[in-house]
Amino acid sequence: MNLPAYATLCDVGPRDGFQFEETLIPTDLKVDVITALAEAGVPVIQVTSFVHPKWVPQMADAEEVCRRLPARDGVRYTGLALNVRGVERAYAAGLRYVDLSIATHDRHSRDNANMTGAEAVAQAVEMVRLAGRYGMAAQMGFQTVFGYVAPGDTPLATVLDLAKRFVDLGIESLSLADSTGMANPLMIEERVQAVQAVAADVPLVLHLHDTRGLALANVVAGLRCGVTRFDTSLAGMGGCPFIPGATGNVSTEDTVYLLDAIGVETGIDREAVAAVSRRVEDFLGKRFSGKLHRLAQREVAV
Amino acid sequence: MNLPAYATLCDVGPRDGFQFEETLIPTDLKVDVITALAEAGVPVIQVTSFVHPKWVPQMADAEEVCRRLPARDGVRYTGLALNVRGVERAYAAGLRYVDLSIATHDRHSRDNANMTGAEAVAQAVEMVRLAGRYGMAAQMGFQTVFGYVAPGDTPLATVLDLAKRFVDLGIESLSLADSTGMANPLMIEERVQAVQAVAADVPLVLHLHDTRGLALANVVAGLRCGVTRFDTSLAGMGGCPFIPGATGNVSTEDTVYLLDAIGVETGIDREAVAAVSRRVEDFLGKRFSGKLHRLAQREVAV
Repeated sequence: MNLPAYATLCDVGPRDGFQFEETLIPTDLKVDVITALAEAGVPVIQVTSFVHPKWVPQMADAEEVCRRLPARDGVRYTGLALNVRGVERAYAAGLRYVDLSIATHDRHSRDNANMTGAEAVAQAVEMVRLAGRYGMAAQMGFQTVFGYVAPGDTPLATVLDLAKRFVDLGIESLSLADSTGMANPLMIEERVQAVQAVAADVPLVLHLHDTRGLALANVVAGLRCGVTRFDTSLAGMGGCPFIPGATGNVSTEDTVYLLDAIGVETGIDREAVAAVSRRVEDFLGKRFSGKLHRLAQREVAV
Repeated sequence: MNLPAYATLCDVGPRDGFQFEETLIPTDLKVDVITALAEAGVPVIQVTSFVHPKWVPQMADAEEVCRRLPARDGVRYTGLALNVRGVERAYAAGLRYVDLSIATHDRHSRDNANMTGAEAVAQAVEMVRLAGRYGMAAQMGFQTVFGYVAPGDTPLATVLDLAKRFVDLGIESLSLADSTGMANPLMIEERVQAVQAVAADVPLVLHLHDTRGLALANVVAGLRCGVTRFDTSLAGMGGCPFIPGATGNVSTEDTVYLLDAIGVETGIDREAVAAVSRRVEDFLGKRFSGKLHRLAQREVAV
């Protein structure tokens, strides 16, 4: 199996995982979680999103979280922005990396962002340019690349057109999100290779959800295509609360377990991440869908 | 991706899934579940095991389950036997397919079966010969092929020696079990290819547990090696009750979802299997770790 030697994980849990939790997570705990992830060797952490607190009350403390981020060599903190105001806030909060995000399925754009695809593109272009003027590195994220209502229903041609357009604008990286967990290894191979062909030297990131249990199989498919950057979430937190049975992002520690097992280095201590996951679960009184943090810490036979 | 056109799934839920449930499942419900799986197009069903009821009270009705199996064209019923008496009972119960199973890790053999590896082999040889005299097709299963206490700690040389030995005895198929969920795609590729090299024309079966979330990634790895037979379990039931957080066999309906998505035919209606899973969960008042049966039946966007 032809695999890269190293992969870089971004834990998006403090944003994608926390955002829809009904229990308000105290800023202290958020900072503790981010600190513990950094100390576990997670090299990139998406710490918050700069959205209006009316829509996502959990993220009302975005500025305070950023103010209290621990300085750690080699750790990059990033925040999600969904409009120009969000980029301004991320910059003012001291972040030098910003994650942008745009729909690729026209109906999703209208459902989720109340914009036509063209309006969303125009706004995103403005956001990339603003980030550039601020000297921030911008990651452009494409939502529902592998399907919105049904697997594969997002036109690949749209994805490729958008990829060309944003690569030309000077983004730092391009994230392909399987927001609905509809990707499969074959689709990963087809769509990733197609995007790689137009993305030139801009690295791709895969943002995978485990809704149908395929996230780790999709990680392997991505690795086989040469993808070395993945978004993951402690404990497998995340996902939409409106979908019965929907599960979250692929678990950080499960992904590290896989990568350790197949000889792809991450620099992450998976048991240290699992300990953070258990702490968050205990606070929320919930159990998330990742596997490793629920296993006993030593290998046990069945 | 080079994939086979067709794969054959054996649902082991009525045996591997049910065996450790504390609530006794009524024979009526077992027969209903088996019937519904057959009607959903599952081509092979492991319906029970012929073990002493003192050890596994849930299987005390093995003979009655077999007596009440619905005749269905193209559906094979099989039962698990762990000793010669079990093979005799399976034959007397009318089964024409029997699954045998043997440890491959010496410590596991002593822990689990209270026999040395050599004693276990001698007994298994006798079982294969008896099945042959009865005219039964025997599948030989190797336990913990991918690790017992730690990933990969089962000597591959032992697995290969045993494979040669049992292939020469005329088994119908050879099942490689990841009893502990310690396999990963790289190990699957290495060990499956090594066994294929000695197994001649005897088809391999992969029996995968999802303890660390890698089962579906391992299915893909198996398919890429040309494996076309997999053991799965409705709802992802199974696994050992003594391991905290341990999860069961790979879910039948999740596997069918994957195979449908990547164009590998199974003949199985995954939503029909999911309906059976929900019925069993409701009866037991539990939720198992499979994903698909928990999702709304139509594709929904997140």
